[in-house]
Amino acid sequence: MLEALKKEVYEANMLLPKYGLVTFTWGNVSGIDQESGLFVIKPSGVDYDKLTPDDMVVMDLNGEKVEGRYKPSSDTPTHLELYKACPDIGGVVHTHSSYATSWAQSGRSIPCYGTTHADYIYGEVPCLRCLTKDEIDEAYETNTGLLITDYFKDKDFMAVPAVLCKNHGPFTWGKDAHEAVHNAVVLEEVAKMAFRTELINPSVRPAPSELQDKHYYRKHGANAYYGQN
Amino acid sequence: MLEALKKEVYEANMLLPKYGLVTFTWGNVSGIDQESGLFVIKPSGVDYDKLTPDDMVVMDLNGEKVEGRYKPSSDTPTHLELYKACPDIGGVVHTHSSYATSWAQSGRSIPCYGTTHADYIYGEVPCLRCLTKDEIDEAYETNTGLLITDYFKDKDFMAVPAVLCKNHGPFTWGKDAHEAVHNAVVLEEVAKMAFRTELINPSVRPAPSELQDKHYYRKHGANAYYGQN
Amino acid sequence: MLEALKKEVYEANMLLPKYGLVTFTWGNVSGIDQESGLFVIKPSGVDYDKLTPDDMVVMDLNGEKVEGRYKPSSDTPTHLELYKACPDIGGVVHTHSSYATSWAQSGRSIPCYGTTHADYIYGEVPCLRCLTKDEIDEAYETNTGLLITDYFKDKDFMAVPAVLCKNHGPFTWGKDAHEAVHNAVVLEEVAKMAFRTELINPSVRPAPSELQDKHYYRKHGANAYYGQN
Amino acid sequence: MLEALKKEVYEANMLLPKYGLVTFTWGNVSGIDQESGLFVIKPSGVDYDKLTPDDMVVMDLNGEKVEGRYKPSSDTPTHLELYKACPDIGGVVHTHSSYATSWAQSGRSIPCYGTTHADYIYGEVPCLRCLTKDEIDEAYETNTGLLITDYFKDKDFMAVPAVLCKNHGPFTWGKDAHEAVHNAVVLEEVAKMAFRTELINPSVRPAPSELQDKHYYRKHGANAYYGQN
Repeated sequence: MLEALKKEVYEANMLLPKYGLVTFTWGNVSGIDQESGLFVIKPSGVDYDKLTPDDMVVMDLNGEKVEGRYKPSSDTPTHLELYKACPDIGGVVHTHSSYATSWAQSGRSIPCYGTTHADYIYGEVPCLRCLTKDEIDEAYETNTGLLITDYFKDKDFMAVPAVLCKNHGPFTWGKDAHEAVHNAVVLEEVAKMAFRTELINPSVRPAPSELQDKHYYRKHGANAYYGQN
Repeated sequence: MLEALKKEVYEANMLLPKYGLVTFTWGNVSGIDQESGLFVIKPSGVDYDKLTPDDMVVMDLNGEKVEGRYKPSSDTPTHLELYKACPDIGGVVHTHSSYATSWAQSGRSIPCYGTTHADYIYGEVPCLRCLTKDEIDEAYETNTGLLITDYFKDKDFMAVPAVLCKNHGPFTWGKDAHEAVHNAVVLEEVAKMAFRTELINPSVRPAPSELQDKHYYRKHGANAYYGQN
Repeated sequence: MLEALKKEVYEANMLLPKYGLVTFTWGNVSGIDQESGLFVIKPSGVDYDKLTPDDMVVMDLNGEKVEGRYKPSSDTPTHLELYKACPDIGGVVHTHSSYATSWAQSGRSIPCYGTTHADYIYGEVPCLRCLTKDEIDEAYETNTGLLITDYFKDKDFMAVPAVLCKNHGPFTWGKDAHEAVHNAVVLEEVAKMAFRTELINPSVRPAPSELQDKHYYRKHGANAYYGQN
Repeated sequence: MLEALKKEVYEANMLLPKYGLVTFTWGNVSGIDQESGLFVIKPSGVDYDKLTPDDMVVMDLNGEKVEGRYKPSSDTPTHLELYKACPDIGGVVHTHSSYATSWAQSGRSIPCYGTTHADYIYGEVPCLRCLTKDEIDEAYETNTGLLITDYFKDKDFMAVPAVLCKNHGPFTWGKDAHEAVHNAVVLEEVAKMAFRTELINPSVRPAPSELQDKHYYRKHGANAYYGQN
C-alpha cells in the first residue's frame, strides 16, 4: 500500500546522509497521505545504507502500525502530533544536525540575522523548553509533539517550518517529505551562519524587519516573484 | 545568440557548487558582452544539477529580456547596475557563501589581516548599510546595485572586487564571469581566516600597509612578477 | 590464528579514516578474543592504505607478542590494561580526533549538554589528569591504562565508554572493536557540539538529569525500546 | 636532468590539494639534490590540475634558473635561504593553509597543547615578525628567508620544522619534499586543535614539559620506539 509515498519518504530519508545532516541512524523523515490519514515513516535504528522503500512503516493517526515488518522510529508519536495539529504539514523531519542541535543544547532560539533565514523562515526559530519529569515519564515522544503544537496553536506552522527542542535537537516540516528535508538543510545552514555571526560581532542585532519581510514575501504568498512560477 | 558567452556563464555558475559556495539555488553568475551591451545570467530558482547553457537568460542594460525561456535571477537588476557603472566589469557573482554571509550578517567590513587577502583585494572588504524601507519598497534589487555603485563612485572597482550587503551577503566581480567566481572563492577563504584570526587574537590589527602593498602590487599592475606573464 | 578477529579488527581500523577520525597513522583499534585471552591490534606507524588483515599483531595479556611480523601499536600496554580491568570490554580505540583531542588539550571533561550525548554516554566524559614525570618515565603507556582503570574501579565502564587523557587524546571502548569505533565517532560528534554549544551560550548548563536518564534508558537496559530488538 | 627529483617534487606538490592545504595556486613545494646543490621547485601561478613533472623548475643556490620553461615560484628566494642555512633540509613547503595562516595573521606563536604537536614539533611553532618597509622593498622573498634562518641560527631546524611569518603564512621543511608536506599537514592539524583548545578553555596552559619530551623522544632520536624501525 501507498507505494508511491513509501518511495518518496524513502528518498527523502536518503537525502539526510547526502546533505550531511545525520551520523549513523540519528534522524528520520515521514510523509502523510492526507486522503487516507495514513503516514509513512523510517523504521527505528536501521542503517541508511541498508534501507529500502519496502522497509518504510505505515502508521495511522491513532499511532497504530498498519503495515511494515519493522518497528517505526521511536520519534513517531512526535510526528503524529504535528500531522494532527496542522493539515498543511505533509512531511516531518527530525535530525541531530550539528549546528541546529548545538543551538538546541544552548537553549537559545535562533535570531533572524539575514536574508538566507528570512527567505524561508518568518522570524526566529524558537527553542522550546525541556519537558518536565512527569511529561517525560508519562509519554516522552507524544508530549514532545504536544509541546510543539501548543506553541504553534496561535501561529502559522508553514511560516516557521522549524523548531528546536531544548537539549535535544530540531524538527522541521513542509508541504511534503522533500520540502521538510529542504527546510532541515536550510535550518542547519542558518544555524551555522548565526553561530559565526555572533562570534564576529557579539552585539549584533537581528536583521531589520522590513528586510526580513521583503525576502520572505519575495518567495512566499500572492506577490512572490522568486523562481519560475 | 551569444552561445560562447552562455557556455562561459553556465560553466562559471557550475563552479559555485563545485567550490562549495552555494546551497540549493542560492547564487548566480552573469557575464557581459561589452560590444553588444547584452549580458547573460542564470535563471531564477533553477537547480544547478538541471541547468544547461541553453537555460541562460540574455538581458539588455535596460533590464529587458532579449532571449530565454526562463525568468532571469531575481538579483538581475543588481548585476545590471554594476555593469552600467563600470565598463571593466565583465562578470558578477552573488552567493550566500557561509563565512562571507556571516560577516555581512554581523554588519562588519572584513579587515585585511594578511597577504592572502592583499594578494587580491586592496584594503578591507566593505560592508554596506541596509537599504531603508522606502528603498526596499521602491526597487529592492536595483537599489542594492545603486548602493554598491554609489559607494564605489570615487573608488576603483577592480582593486576591491567584492562587497558585503548588510544582513544579506556578498557580491563579487571581475574582468569576466570566471574571474568573478575566482574572487568569490577568495572572499570566502579570506572571510573564514579573518573570523579565526580574531578569535585567536581579539586585539589583532590589520596587516602593515607596506606588506599589503607589496603583495597587491606583486600580482597587479605594471611591476607585477607573480605567475607566468 | 584468530583470522576472523584479525579481519574484524582490520575492518574496524579502516573505519577510522572513513569517519575522518585519523590523520596519517594517528589511531589504533584492538579487539580481544575473550576465550583465549589474546587480543589483536594494529601495528605501529603503518599507513592505513597499506594495511591488510595479516598485518594485525596478536598479543597476550602479559604484553607478549604471540604472532605478527610487525611491532604492535606503541599504545598496546594501554589497551591491555583496559582488557584486564573489565571483561565486558571487547574492543578499544585510540585516536587524535580533532574535537575530542581539543577537549583533552583544554583539560576539561565534556558535560552532557543533550540527548545525542545521553543516548550513548551516561553523564560527562571525564578528562583525567596528566601522568607525573615518574609515571611517564617508569612506564608511560601502561600507567596511562592504569590511570583509566583506577578512575573506573568503582564505576561502570560500559555506561561511560569514553575517556580523555589530558594534553593527549581520547580512548573509547565497546563490546567489540566495531562498537568501540562507533563510540569514537559518537564522542567526536558530542565533543564538536559541546564546543559550539558553549560558544553560543557561555552560561549553558548540562541537560536535566531526567532527560539524560530518559534517553540513556530508551536505548540501554531492560526497558530499552529504541531500534529493532 | 634530475628527473627522479622532479617527479618526487611534482608528487609532493600534488599532495597539497589532496590534503586540503591549498586553494587555487596558493602553495609550493621544493626539494634539493644535496650532491649537486640544485633544487627543484613548482613554477609560479600554474594550476595544480595542469601541472606535470616536466613543468618543475631547476634552480641553483645562487638563485639562477638551470632548467625549465616556466618562471619558478615567486617564493623561490625564501626556499633558497633555508637550503643554504641547513644542510639537513631536503624539502621546503609554503602554503596559505587555513588554520596555520589564521595563527600567522593573529601574530601569535602556536603553544604546544598536547601530544599531537609534541610528536612532531619540539616546543611552540614560532611566529616571526613582519619585515620592515626597507626589508620588503629591498628583497622581500630573500629577506623572508633570512628572517627565518636568523631565528634558527642557534636552534635546531629539524626539531621545529615549521614557522609562521606574521600576516602571511607558514613555511615547513623536512629531510625531503614529502616529509616537508607531511609536516605542513601536521602543522595545520595542530593549529586547528590549538584554536579550539583555547576557545574551550581560555586559561589553558601548554602541556607539561615531561609529557612533551616523552612524545617527542618516543618518535625521534636514539631511544625512539614508535613505528617499525
